[in-house]
Amino acid sequence: VSDFNLDLARFARTGLEEAVFCAGKSLQHMVQILEAAAARNISLLLTRLSMDHHEELAKSWPDRLDYDTVSRSAYFGRPHSPAQEPAEIAVVAAGTSDLAVSREAVRTLRYYGIPTLEINDVGVAGLWRLMDRIEEIRRMSVVIAVAGMDAALPTVVGGLVPGAVIGVPTSVGYGVAHGGQTALNAMLASCAAGMTVVNIDNGFGAACAAMRILRARSGLTKA
Amino acid sequence: VSDFNLDLARFARTGLEEAVFCAGKSLQHMVQILEAAAARNISLLLTRLSMDHHEELAKSWPDRLDYDTVSRSAYFGRPHSPAQEPAEIAVVAAGTSDLAVSREAVRTLRYYGIPTLEINDVGVAGLWRLMDRIEEIRRMSVVIAVAGMDAALPTVVGGLVPGAVIGVPTSVGYGVAHGGQTALNAMLASCAAGMTVVNIDNGFGAACAAMRILRARSGLTKA
Amino acid sequence: VSDFNLDLARFARTGLEEAVFCAGKSLQHMVQILEAAAARNISLLLTRLSMDHHEELAKSWPDRLDYDTVSRSAYFGRPHSPAQEPAEIAVVAAGTSDLAVSREAVRTLRYYGIPTLEINDVGVAGLWRLMDRIEEIRRMSVVIAVAGMDAALPTVVGGLVPGAVIGVPTSVGYGVAHGGQTALNAMLASCAAGMTVVNIDNGFGAACAAMRILRARSGLTKA
Amino acid sequence: VSDFNLDLARFARTGLEEAVFCAGKSLQHMVQILEAAAARNISLLLTRLSMDHHEELAKSWPDRLDYDTVSRSAYFGRPHSPAQEPAEIAVVAAGTSDLAVSREAVRTLRYYGIPTLEINDVGVAGLWRLMDRIEEIRRMSVVIAVAGMDAALPTVVGGLVPGAVIGVPTSVGYGVAHGGQTALNAMLASCAAGMTVVNIDNGFGAACAAMRILRARSGLTKA
Amino acid sequence: VSDFNLDLARFARTGLEEAVFCAGKSLQHMVQILEAAAARNISLLLTRLSMDHHEELAKSWPDRLDYDTVSRSAYFGRPHSPAQEPAEIAVVAAGTSDLAVSREAVRTLRYYGIPTLEINDVGVAGLWRLMDRIEEIRRMSVVIAVAGMDAALPTVVGGLVPGAVIGVPTSVGYGVAHGGQTALNAMLASCAAGMTVVNIDNGFGAACAAMRILRARSGLTKA
Amino acid sequence: VSDFNLDLARFARTGLEEAVFCAGKSLQHMVQILEAAAARNISLLLTRLSMDHHEELAKSWPDRLDYDTVSRSAYFGRPHSPAQEPAEIAVVAAGTSDLAVSREAVRTLRYYGIPTLEINDVGVAGLWRLMDRIEEIRRMSVVIAVAGMDAALPTVVGGLVPGAVIGVPTSVGYGVAHGGQTALNAMLASCAAGMTVVNIDNGFGAACAAMRILRARSGLTKA
Amino acid sequence: VSDFNLDLARFARTGLEEAVFCAGKSLQHMVQILEAAAARNISLLLTRLSMDHHEELAKSWPDRLDYDTVSRSAYFGRPHSPAQEPAEIAVVAAGTSDLAVSREAVRTLRYYGIPTLEINDVGVAGLWRLMDRIEEIRRMSVVIAVAGMDAALPTVVGGLVPGAVIGVPTSVGYGVAHGGQTALNAMLASCAAGMTVVNIDNGFGAACAAMRILRARSGLTKA
Amino acid sequence: VSDFNLDLARFARTGLEEAVFCAGKSLQHMVQILEAAAARNISLLLTRLSMDHHEELAKSWPDRLDYDTVSRSAYFGRPHSPAQEPAEIAVVAAGTSDLAVSREAVRTLRYYGIPTLEINDVGVAGLWRLMDRIEEIRRMSVVIAVAGMDAALPTVVGGLVPGAVIGVPTSVGYGVAHGGQTALNAMLASCAAGMTVVNIDNGFGAACAAMRILRARSGLTKA
Repeated sequence: VSDFNLDLARFARTGLEEAVFCAGKSLQHMVQILEAAAARNISLLLTRLSMDHHEELAKSWPDRLDYDTVSRSAYFGRPHSPAQEPAEIAVVAAGTSDLAVSREAVRTLRYYGIPTLEINDVGVAGLWRLMDRIEEIRRMSVVIAVAGMDAALPTVVGGLVPGAVIGVPTSVGYGVAHGGQTALNAMLASCAAGMTVVNIDNGFGAACAAMRILRARSGLTKA
Repeated sequence: VSDFNLDLARFARTGLEEAVFCAGKSLQHMVQILEAAAARNISLLLTRLSMDHHEELAKSWPDRLDYDTVSRSAYFGRPHSPAQEPAEIAVVAAGTSDLAVSREAVRTLRYYGIPTLEINDVGVAGLWRLMDRIEEIRRMSVVIAVAGMDAALPTVVGGLVPGAVIGVPTSVGYGVAHGGQTALNAMLASCAAGMTVVNIDNGFGAACAAMRILRARSGLTKA
Repeated sequence: VSDFNLDLARFARTGLEEAVFCAGKSLQHMVQILEAAAARNISLLLTRLSMDHHEELAKSWPDRLDYDTVSRSAYFGRPHSPAQEPAEIAVVAAGTSDLAVSREAVRTLRYYGIPTLEINDVGVAGLWRLMDRIEEIRRMSVVIAVAGMDAALPTVVGGLVPGAVIGVPTSVGYGVAHGGQTALNAMLASCAAGMTVVNIDNGFGAACAAMRILRARSGLTKA
Repeated sequence: VSDFNLDLARFARTGLEEAVFCAGKSLQHMVQILEAAAARNISLLLTRLSMDHHEELAKSWPDRLDYDTVSRSAYFGRPHSPAQEPAEIAVVAAGTSDLAVSREAVRTLRYYGIPTLEINDVGVAGLWRLMDRIEEIRRMSVVIAVAGMDAALPTVVGGLVPGAVIGVPTSVGYGVAHGGQTALNAMLASCAAGMTVVNIDNGFGAACAAMRILRARSGLTKA
Repeated sequence: VSDFNLDLARFARTGLEEAVFCAGKSLQHMVQILEAAAARNISLLLTRLSMDHHEELAKSWPDRLDYDTVSRSAYFGRPHSPAQEPAEIAVVAAGTSDLAVSREAVRTLRYYGIPTLEINDVGVAGLWRLMDRIEEIRRMSVVIAVAGMDAALPTVVGGLVPGAVIGVPTSVGYGVAHGGQTALNAMLASCAAGMTVVNIDNGFGAACAAMRILRARSGLTKA
Repeated sequence: VSDFNLDLARFARTGLEEAVFCAGKSLQHMVQILEAAAARNISLLLTRLSMDHHEELAKSWPDRLDYDTVSRSAYFGRPHSPAQEPAEIAVVAAGTSDLAVSREAVRTLRYYGIPTLEINDVGVAGLWRLMDRIEEIRRMSVVIAVAGMDAALPTVVGGLVPGAVIGVPTSVGYGVAHGGQTALNAMLASCAAGMTVVNIDNGFGAACAAMRILRARSGLTKA
Repeated sequence: VSDFNLDLARFARTGLEEAVFCAGKSLQHMVQILEAAAARNISLLLTRLSMDHHEELAKSWPDRLDYDTVSRSAYFGRPHSPAQEPAEIAVVAAGTSDLAVSREAVRTLRYYGIPTLEINDVGVAGLWRLMDRIEEIRRMSVVIAVAGMDAALPTVVGGLVPGAVIGVPTSVGYGVAHGGQTALNAMLASCAAGMTVVNIDNGFGAACAAMRILRARSGLTKA
Repeated sequence: VSDFNLDLARFARTGLEEAVFCAGKSLQHMVQILEAAAARNISLLLTRLSMDHHEELAKSWPDRLDYDTVSRSAYFGRPHSPAQEPAEIAVVAAGTSDLAVSREAVRTLRYYGIPTLEINDVGVAGLWRLMDRIEEIRRMSVVIAVAGMDAALPTVVGGLVPGAVIGVPTSVGYGVAHGGQTALNAMLASCAAGMTVVNIDNGFGAACAAMRILRARSGLTKA
């Protein structure tokens, strides 16, 4: 019995490199994964990679790791070439403390070459900040709205935008913020109809959901 | 030992009629209270009085009970004369389902003769509804903001209004609304600084808090 | 101040009839809404309309209400004409007890004239039931997966389907099902990347989210 | 896209220096904020600033930071001149363990030049301690009552004081104290009518709420 | 196998009549129990006996049931003769809504012939009510303090009384009262050292605990 | 305003040295307390004193601190002389992991000179261990039963012992043990009538409750 | 699309009649199921069948329904012939209030013809009741232990019995019993190693688990 | 009174070496246990032994400790000789992050000499991985299914396998995974009838439960 049974063959089969969720994986485990990927010339998106682990891995692969300290994500190898189209997806964050999560979504989309509009610090406690950008946001097919604490941003956005809206609650806050549970519940209970939600801090999942929507658009699902 | 020990003497002593929270009190108990108040010629504000109990009580006191079916509150006897001043307190409700709670606040304030501005159905999922009234609201000393579900209204209000803002979460909603707990937590975690909050569905308490603020204003507290 | 401030003008303005969430609204209130809509010749989708209220309303409008007892939804007036296209949206339910919720999604989509594939009773505790239909499901742009209790269906579907997947937890179950909270959490924690979720029992919201995705597809959001 | 989009212009515009919530912000981020403020000659109130970060920042700005270890708050630049009036606001703390929170309220009020009466260690398990000071407290327009564990202090205060009472639950305690949730719930469920509450440990928010009340008093909100 | 296996023999063996918790027991079951007790000439204390069940049972045993509507408890047969001693146990209730619970404690103690001091409506939001009676309360060996909502009464009592203090949280209240959980947690987290607590609404249990303490006193435990 | 307002005068007044709960207090604070106590020649019981803080304090007062590593409690100065009587209080612990809590109770009782029977490792999953000691335990006036996880010990003890039983839930366990909440709830829901409970891990509180019971016994409460 | 898609063919295919969970199913739905089963000459086990529904169904099938009021379960058609072997499974219940659940387990096992030992009212607050029967219980291969409130019974049983032990928490109790959640958690946290647990009130599930164990025994799983 | 009262005699008496749960035990305590076991020539299974403690213990007993870093378990002395039979128990894990728990189950079974089939990384979000191994799994008498997050694996396994199925939820995941509570609830609410569950991360307990089932099989329980 092997401890780890990474389905690297599947990467090749689907034409889609796998993302590796690094939290909770030992350094030794990470080294094995990168070695296997390098041996097969496969690129990887690494999420929740700690600074310490990154530093250790960067010693062995100094040129292959593109690490972002805000989102703690890394590209191993070459990400996809960016598509030459205007952005259809916006990632909108309420506060600077939400950046770790919103940036994970942005980095995931960019890894797959998808043009993305990034707008930060537009929480609705200072409503004019959102209003200055709302026309731009309204033109998007998908809006990923990232917010912690009371998470009022997605409700306001959901009422102003016609396309798909994906809420991402963040664990920002203290006390009754309950590690993001309040933001999550507020988004799910939102009176803005048709908003959907992902797990707390799951910027990666929101980006995947946005890509599923684009895939639905492209008609490829019927091929 | 008497079962019930209503401090009707206190009513006289403080010059302030007591409000009676009727939920959970038996009809027999309510009758005893009204009889005692009537005997002493004292007026009362009755909150959470069920329609069934009201119907029974109205048989004995057909002319002394002014009942409101939306808030399930009643005035027994004569409420205070309305002060001849412009309103300094606004009660703002997000949706029509929140009316039972916001109306309780309005009825409490009116019982004590306090001019009140009532604005309904201005939830921020349709932001223009709030924006149409915001200048009026901004001029108030105290804004009571009533909302259920995701309770985004008080956050937006709190960011636009300079005076005191009291949030009242309501038990409106289902699933993750958790009987108002989500609205309560969202208000407490709000990034609009300086907003305070009362218990779920506690329109009466919010009105009392607003009256404490007016009392602070009047300088009477130093007398 | 009017108690109810229905924005019927908005219905006309946006070309989109409003859905009315009937739970918690009094019969008197419902009558006012239908009268206002009838006077303006506007159609409505009514969700969570109790059998009792429906019976009363049907006395006044015997020919205008199309009521469905499973989902407790009604069409008031004329729903949209069905589009003449193959279905792009599937609504997939795990068990017969989930039908109240999945049917609400189906009825909402049909109200707006959107062709929908409905598949029931394919919970993964009897995996072959899902496998018999999986090719059909895979061809859809959007899959709404409805399940209560342990909610394993959406995870399995999410791993087999390339398009958008919207999970709807239901309050079916007892004990640790916690009124749908366990199903909700299981969906949000799902290891099938890119699935999004709506509130417990919110079939209407899932249908709205699916329509937002179609709207994103159509490019209308950029007009 | 810039990571951080501090609205320093707004400081100037509103004549109100912004408070910066430092918890969760990186040292690098804090340095950028202070540099921007220093360049514009703006003063700041820093809350939840860790001792480690303060030590680092004090190396660059040895003369501009006035740090308080109990509340972990700092004044950067010059706080407002104290108003020459008797205190209208009291900050009352139940136990010495609540000092970190009550002192944050006091420091916030003092930053804005507002005279404040500070009373510590008057929890009601030793009732005489509160009774010794109650006359003084009763004369205030606003009382901020800070308590953890069972949070009985604000209820007793609320029953004895005519002005506004703002409860601040603290995360002091263990076991069923549940990080302040029990204190919060006890305050919200209090039978002392008209008390309002802020988030757990939110001394800053309570001070802001008190200032909103003073602002309501001053009539400035109608200008 | 018999469905019910009442240990009536044990009643005789221990010289202690058993209390029967009637909630959730069918009428048929209750009839069987009373018949068995009557046949053996055994007296019983019945707690949580609904009015409906009492009415039915009273038809068969009109002279043997002494029912109290406030506590929903009944004596079947003859309770113990009251001891001719001054009361050593006080049952103190915060509000009239707590009477159902405090009276259950009183009725249990009286069933066993134990002199009891009953004091109602002395919640600490009106502190003078408690202070008027505190000297009387201080002389007791055991104080049972009954309170719902924020449950501040037992903390204040615990700080003023030298003997044993048993807190009984009640399910009185709404919203964050959480059916008595907040009162329970507040009592357990109380800063008044040495107070103990029983389950929500468990007046019977508190009386039993008080009797265990008296039994400890009497030295009988060493016989 | 002084930060710390230790009521050392009260120590003298009541003839009862105060216990100091050290968790969350800074070293500097602890030094101030011990200096004040030493200056007045007062002894103290210190609970939840960390090993690190003890080491530091022991440098200044090498001969006055009697520290116990299991319970993390210390006697500062001279504890009371042990009473020359047989033990009336037993402290019974379910497992060796519960020792930190049960020993805190034992140490508290010994500080006040009260003879105590200590019995460890008698959890009911190995029932014979309890049965070997049950006769000894039955003779006590008060039994403090300490258990974590499922906390079945106090229920079994409560059914076998006639005197007062105080349950102390511990935070021992993982997963559904929920930091002692499960043990606490199990004790409160116990079908052994008349058991009372204190906060999770609160060995000190249980000892205080036992001393209140002894005080009730002694008749001193009537003096 | 049919609303209900009962897999009656599967009944025939597997040789195993399906159990139907009736809670939440409409009467109309139940009639359809019984008609379909009757048409195919299939027997059914019906669980959670309300008395009202049973009465209605019994009108159409007076001779085919064997209903048990305690467990609210019914046999439709012929249950399996009882196996002529000594019982290997015991169902042990703590209190008479747990009978609804334990009897569901017994009735399920009897439907499938499996000899079962049923023992009631042996909760460990009266330990001798269990001890009188323990030798009998110890001889079983599988013990299903049913208990609510503090659920101490399964822990004691688990420590005395060598075979498989399945705990079934019940929703019996009030306050902190939390509808069976406390009993469930206590069982899962039990220090009796190797006990497993099913959902609250799930007597049917426990019986199925016991049958899976017997199936494992029989070696049939390897055929 | 001794602090620790290890029942090493019981090891000898029952012929069954005891497993020691090391989490929360001090190094000093662990040394005492191993010394006592070594002196009596008894072998031990150590679970939850931290790497640090293992390193320290290995200094004294370099040859007697067989430590596994994944499960953090150790064999002290000689484990049982492996039985020469085909495996009847499978331990199936959903993801590589669940290995710490599934390996604890495997190591426990191997300590007692029981042949075990170990299958890793077959979560149902990639359903083909399970389907590749399902025939092998179906032949087992007992399947231990280990999964975190949404825990869909055991439901799918339970629907495909005729023997006993024991679910082990793991604390893997973040946000709504709630430290394994969501996985636990999903397993307990599973619609796959007859699955039982153990505490979060309790691989040891699941192995013990499997051994109880084998013991039931062997007929030894009747000896």
